[in-house]
Amino acid sequence: MPPHTADAAVRTHRTADATLTVTLDGAPLTGAEVVVAQRDHAFLFGCTGFEFIPLANGEPSGGDGSPEEIPAEQAEHLAELWFELFNFATLPFYWGRFEPARGEPDTERLRKTARWFADRGCAVKGHPLAWHTVTAEWLLDLTNEEIAREQAARIRREVSGFAGLIDMWDVINEVVIMPIFDKYDNGITRLCREIGRIPMVRMVFDAAREANPGGTLLLNDFDMSAAYECLIEGLLEAGITIDALGLQSHMHQGYWGEEKTLEVIDRFARYGLPIHFTETTLLSGHLMPPEIVDLNDYQIPEWPSTPEGEARQADEIARHYKTLLSHPSVQAMTYWGMADGGWLGAPGGFVRTDGTPKPSYEALRSLVKGEWWLPPTTLATDEQGRVRFTGFLGEYEVTAAGRTARFRLDAPGEATLDAAL
Amino acid sequence: MPPHTADAAVRTHRTADATLTVTLDGAPLTGAEVVVAQRDHAFLFGCTGFEFIPLANGEPSGGDGSPEEIPAEQAEHLAELWFELFNFATLPFYWGRFEPARGEPDTERLRKTARWFADRGCAVKGHPLAWHTVTAEWLLDLTNEEIAREQAARIRREVSGFAGLIDMWDVINEVVIMPIFDKYDNGITRLCREIGRIPMVRMVFDAAREANPGGTLLLNDFDMSAAYECLIEGLLEAGITIDALGLQSHMHQGYWGEEKTLEVIDRFARYGLPIHFTETTLLSGHLMPPEIVDLNDYQIPEWPSTPEGEARQADEIARHYKTLLSHPSVQAMTYWGMADGGWLGAPGGFVRTDGTPKPSYEALRSLVKGEWWLPPTTLATDEQGRVRFTGFLGEYEVTAAGRTARFRLDAPGEATLDAAL
Repeated sequence: MPPHTADAAVRTHRTADATLTVTLDGAPLTGAEVVVAQRDHAFLFGCTGFEFIPLANGEPSGGDGSPEEIPAEQAEHLAELWFELFNFATLPFYWGRFEPARGEPDTERLRKTARWFADRGCAVKGHPLAWHTVTAEWLLDLTNEEIAREQAARIRREVSGFAGLIDMWDVINEVVIMPIFDKYDNGITRLCREIGRIPMVRMVFDAAREANPGGTLLLNDFDMSAAYECLIEGLLEAGITIDALGLQSHMHQGYWGEEKTLEVIDRFARYGLPIHFTETTLLSGHLMPPEIVDLNDYQIPEWPSTPEGEARQADEIARHYKTLLSHPSVQAMTYWGMADGGWLGAPGGFVRTDGTPKPSYEALRSLVKGEWWLPPTTLATDEQGRVRFTGFLGEYEVTAAGRTARFRLDAPGEATLDAAL
Repeated sequence: MPPHTADAAVRTHRTADATLTVTLDGAPLTGAEVVVAQRDHAFLFGCTGFEFIPLANGEPSGGDGSPEEIPAEQAEHLAELWFELFNFATLPFYWGRFEPARGEPDTERLRKTARWFADRGCAVKGHPLAWHTVTAEWLLDLTNEEIAREQAARIRREVSGFAGLIDMWDVINEVVIMPIFDKYDNGITRLCREIGRIPMVRMVFDAAREANPGGTLLLNDFDMSAAYECLIEGLLEAGITIDALGLQSHMHQGYWGEEKTLEVIDRFARYGLPIHFTETTLLSGHLMPPEIVDLNDYQIPEWPSTPEGEARQADEIARHYKTLLSHPSVQAMTYWGMADGGWLGAPGGFVRTDGTPKPSYEALRSLVKGEWWLPPTTLATDEQGRVRFTGFLGEYEVTAAGRTARFRLDAPGEATLDAAL
């Protein structure tokens, strides 16, 4: 899709032409100046929030959980940058880190962190509830039957315990490879190999659904091949309700480009489910060699961000976000790591290790809070108290006469709304 | 698996230690010489039989169907070589060639060919009933609903029409890629994309099962990745009965080797279904370049068989058959093309274009009719009329006093049998 076509598609699917009738004490506010301002996006612009666990918990020296956690004093500046771009945080619930010793889950630190994000207006997602990687080592001492029981119990505990604060979960991660994962022994692969992929997904989705019937439950995978399609089709035929499909897109080996990205979205959009890009990375340094199959196999002592790499990353970031928003099925995009130096040490962040933002940061900001955003805008109401404007879907405020009312643009196209001041 | 381990596994899973009591007119035939001889293998040693359609139909100048068909006069010698190795033929039912004009199926030629093989003691399989490649072009003029109706009707027609002669079918081919096949438009991809893979398989299996409830119905694919696993798991969860899993192994880009072969078999054996290697090729010339993804994309004017290639092929043929028979789940192995010059023009046959057999022919013959075969063997019965011998599973005859009785070795291990002369 050429850029102007993408821009047009973004506007078609993401903006509403609003006619807003403003009333003051019940009567149309005619011939008056009002200020309309966007407050939030309907689209979920997400990022990992792992880094902020120590900050949210007042731990100046840093945490003891995810390696991505950074000391509170270094995190404050990063947090300012974070909230300027994002309205959606992914928090880590890797079983092996969340409950390294059986019966001692890290619930309170995660609850404080989720609350910290929620207080700042962010939706929060937990990731993941079942996965063969970074899973609890103590599962290896259990029978498969016991592992299944512990896995379901763990899901019920987290999903019900965080309900209201976290109502969205990557319930299970990377099921395509789960039963044939052969890098090391682990309890989840053992179980999935015995019972099969579909019973495994059914079990974890049933547990999560039971614990939070109103929650949004995702299936997540990195495998964009027909394998994931076949898995999804099998799950849907088996009657398992999936609320959104999670697609990973760690592009350590190079930007997919618009064509491949749309081809992937089209293939997964045909199930009629919302699509979330759950894990996205684009590098501002040299690319990972193409022969690497498992990204975790490429670990180098230093992986610098370079000026050329940063220019490329900024361009690709803008193109990638535009491509995603140009397709109506995509409802969320989570970037994997705000700052460099996190996962794999790759220069994949919007912020360098010294805390300064890269060009990619400004590229995304100029979309999310620029081209795709309605800043406070003064409009004059007509003789019926109406103003007309076009805005990106999301939360808005209208202010006049010292009063403010909120409203939402929920669906693309024409929108007729009222705001009572 | 080292060669001696493979040999031991082949003997474990494929031979029986028989104790045969021979009676003559109801009384034990004691202290007598009897001749025991194997007549057939239980294992299905298969090959395509496309070449012999003109011969079976008395068409000296060759047929007008599959390009693999060869004129009758050239086929007689090839047939002699064929029946020395194989007991199982795959015949072509590609819709686009079988019924190029709607309503004019090539039924009689195929029926004569199937009969020709059956008369020579061969099991016959039809391939394939549903596939997006070489499908009927006239489907493109129909709606998806009509395509579905025609596809099911076509399956019922062939499967019931050939019942008793052909009771084994590759019902559907390459479902993993079917709905996303994008090389050219075709009716089957259109339909599969609309209704999904599992409903597509259900429809074609239901039609075939209804038409021949006792038939052996296969799912067949070239995709050995987790995609095929996911598809199979979805089908089994959906309650579709698959009688055997077909695995293709066209090795135009090089022999898989024992390790990969066993890894593939193990992954698909865990569904507890018999495994058929449905389409196998090993070359005796240069290999296809590794960057080719679709084998059909590599067509060259001449692709010679070479002495070095023939030596390599002979070695690989022996290793591959041994590997397959070393795994108890494998029940059939079909080689794709007896003679060079067929599919893709590749030197993949056991026989050169000049009709002479390659070393691979002798390599396979020395297994199928040598190491794995009991030739007529004279044994002396004991005082209870018993002889003991070890033989590969299959059909046997025992002869004494001018009379012959048949018996079967059906299962590995100890076998106690009677033969009444």
